[in-house]
Amino acid sequence: MDRILLGHGAGGRLMHSLIREHFSGAFGMAELLDAARLSLEGRRVAMSTDSYVVKPLFFPGGDIGELSVYGTVNDLSMVGARPLCLTVGFILEEGLPLEDLRRIVASMARAAQRAGVALVAGDTKVVERGKGDGMFINTAGLGLLPEGLELVPSRMSPGDVVILSGPVGEHGIAVMAERNGLSFEPPLRSDTRPLNDLVQKMLQAGEGLKVLRDPTRGGLATTLKELALQSGLNILVREEDIPVSPQVRGAAELLGLDPLYVACEGVLVAVAGAPVAEYLLALMREHPDGVQARAIGEVLPPEGSEPRVVLQTAIGGQRMLEMLLAEQLPRIC
Amino acid sequence: MDRILLGHGAGGRLMHSLIREHFSGAFGMAELLDAARLSLEGRRVAMSTDSYVVKPLFFPGGDIGELSVYGTVNDLSMVGARPLCLTVGFILEEGLPLEDLRRIVASMARAAQRAGVALVAGDTKVVERGKGDGMFINTAGLGLLPEGLELVPSRMSPGDVVILSGPVGEHGIAVMAERNGLSFEPPLRSDTRPLNDLVQKMLQAGEGLKVLRDPTRGGLATTLKELALQSGLNILVREEDIPVSPQVRGAAELLGLDPLYVACEGVLVAVAGAPVAEYLLALMREHPDGVQARAIGEVLPPEGSEPRVVLQTAIGGQRMLEMLLAEQLPRIC
Repeated sequence: MDRILLGHGAGGRLMHSLIREHFSGAFGMAELLDAARLSLEGRRVAMSTDSYVVKPLFFPGGDIGELSVYGTVNDLSMVGARPLCLTVGFILEEGLPLEDLRRIVASMARAAQRAGVALVAGDTKVVERGKGDGMFINTAGLGLLPEGLELVPSRMSPGDVVILSGPVGEHGIAVMAERNGLSFEPPLRSDTRPLNDLVQKMLQAGEGLKVLRDPTRGGLATTLKELALQSGLNILVREEDIPVSPQVRGAAELLGLDPLYVACEGVLVAVAGAPVAEYLLALMREHPDGVQARAIGEVLPPEGSEPRVVLQTAIGGQRMLEMLLAEQLPRIC
Repeated sequence: MDRILLGHGAGGRLMHSLIREHFSGAFGMAELLDAARLSLEGRRVAMSTDSYVVKPLFFPGGDIGELSVYGTVNDLSMVGARPLCLTVGFILEEGLPLEDLRRIVASMARAAQRAGVALVAGDTKVVERGKGDGMFINTAGLGLLPEGLELVPSRMSPGDVVILSGPVGEHGIAVMAERNGLSFEPPLRSDTRPLNDLVQKMLQAGEGLKVLRDPTRGGLATTLKELALQSGLNILVREEDIPVSPQVRGAAELLGLDPLYVACEGVLVAVAGAPVAEYLLALMREHPDGVQARAIGEVLPPEGSEPRVVLQTAIGGQRMLEMLLAEQLPRIC
């Protein structure tokens, strides 16, 4: 394999090996978190970047512009940072209707306002017809990181509780349904939303909150497996406690997808010490974006050579959750 | 005109109207500088972003990776900031040889080391074959801005001296020659280089240094016209004082290009008060990246309705320099 495959961008195992073999060493990036944590003359800050290539540009519940704002806001939030500002880079394909650009720019402005961040710098490039695909957007963000806050997998320990803020799979299924010309009544909508306000509330739980992750590319299963590998611990989750809307379940079956591997854009996974778990859940449920929060499993001691994620199925069986291998959902964000 | 044209990305008039009509208002970006200037809890910082879509990925004197590091380092430097770190977003086309990626990543690592910046966060997306063009790279950068430093066109005044750090047109001509299969002996090479070290030296000139710009897309002529429009003043430059290498001149003629409109990636334009101009020039010439620095013109009082840039030609005539209208050089950076 000496060429880039679609799966290299899918958030799963292929992408991880690409990062490990090609990027981490060359760039000296030791941590693989959603955002980099830095010290700026004694002030702790976080930086993050994401490019957005979602197809189509407009989908039920959102568009590429909104997604590009919330996605980076959320990445900053997952290390506990308070997002302050974003930069925006457009790569436009010759022939893109200006009206599409106008709508997407307006959507970004609204999203930035909702998330309370400023869009501070921009860039526009244009490529020839057939050398792009309508529009790609990159956003990079800067946030302030509270002193002493360390949301990292190495702080996880056996007995910790795994919490999920809401139902999974909504973004990916909404995009795939739109792409395949499927429509549902009531419509399936992406869950894209900013999570920074919810996270600010969750930080009130204090040190017992150990890790935050948003299960985007690769879905919940891939995120859990990452946490297992990065902490060196096993994770057990209960299928019956993982909320999946009946609509998403139905559409996923129709599309041949497993909702546990489908991208979310508006929920988060938290790992918290058992003593604060109930308090954290209560905090989350007070927030409009966390009303459906629930404990879905727990962290277990290591066992064997590779840390595992075990799904306890509704009928009492067990299934190992691995990382998404290649892609089931290209260009989902 | 209701669709995106290649010229919308060329750095000239079309791009400026796109920014004015579609971005500035929606995003609330008042200033149009190379980098945004922000206050982060009392600390002044600068942020900037650029996407790189240069074609081909490898060209004499550089590659897209190196360019993407130096380009953003230079944008931060143009507001006087000291660049600290960059984020990197890759958009890869399915089928890209992994060896190309490896070479470009290595080149970025070297460039970051040379410029003294850290590459702190990254993202990789993959699009289907035919929906991209090998590789696009976005970088966004964060820099520290010294207290009190204001490098803005509103500080320009009649009598100021316009200084150029080196010969123009080398990057654009090198890329276009490569793209057109022309080769020269000795080879034409891109001038891509980090300018942050030169700028740090120039800041010793103090308050007399008023503006810095790197004439990338649109070239020197477009940059000067921007400065005239943003300051509301006229600018006079002398053709015979603007260094263009004989090779660039020859290749530009062959390609039907005007070197004054061709992108540079390693020179800068400075506007300085007359009292410090000689000292500033001396500082620049002490630096390896500024040995060819020279005064090329001066700032004049306004005259008529629209600020003008007048080129005094070598044969004693005058020519108005306008912004590049559309593109003569698509995908040059």
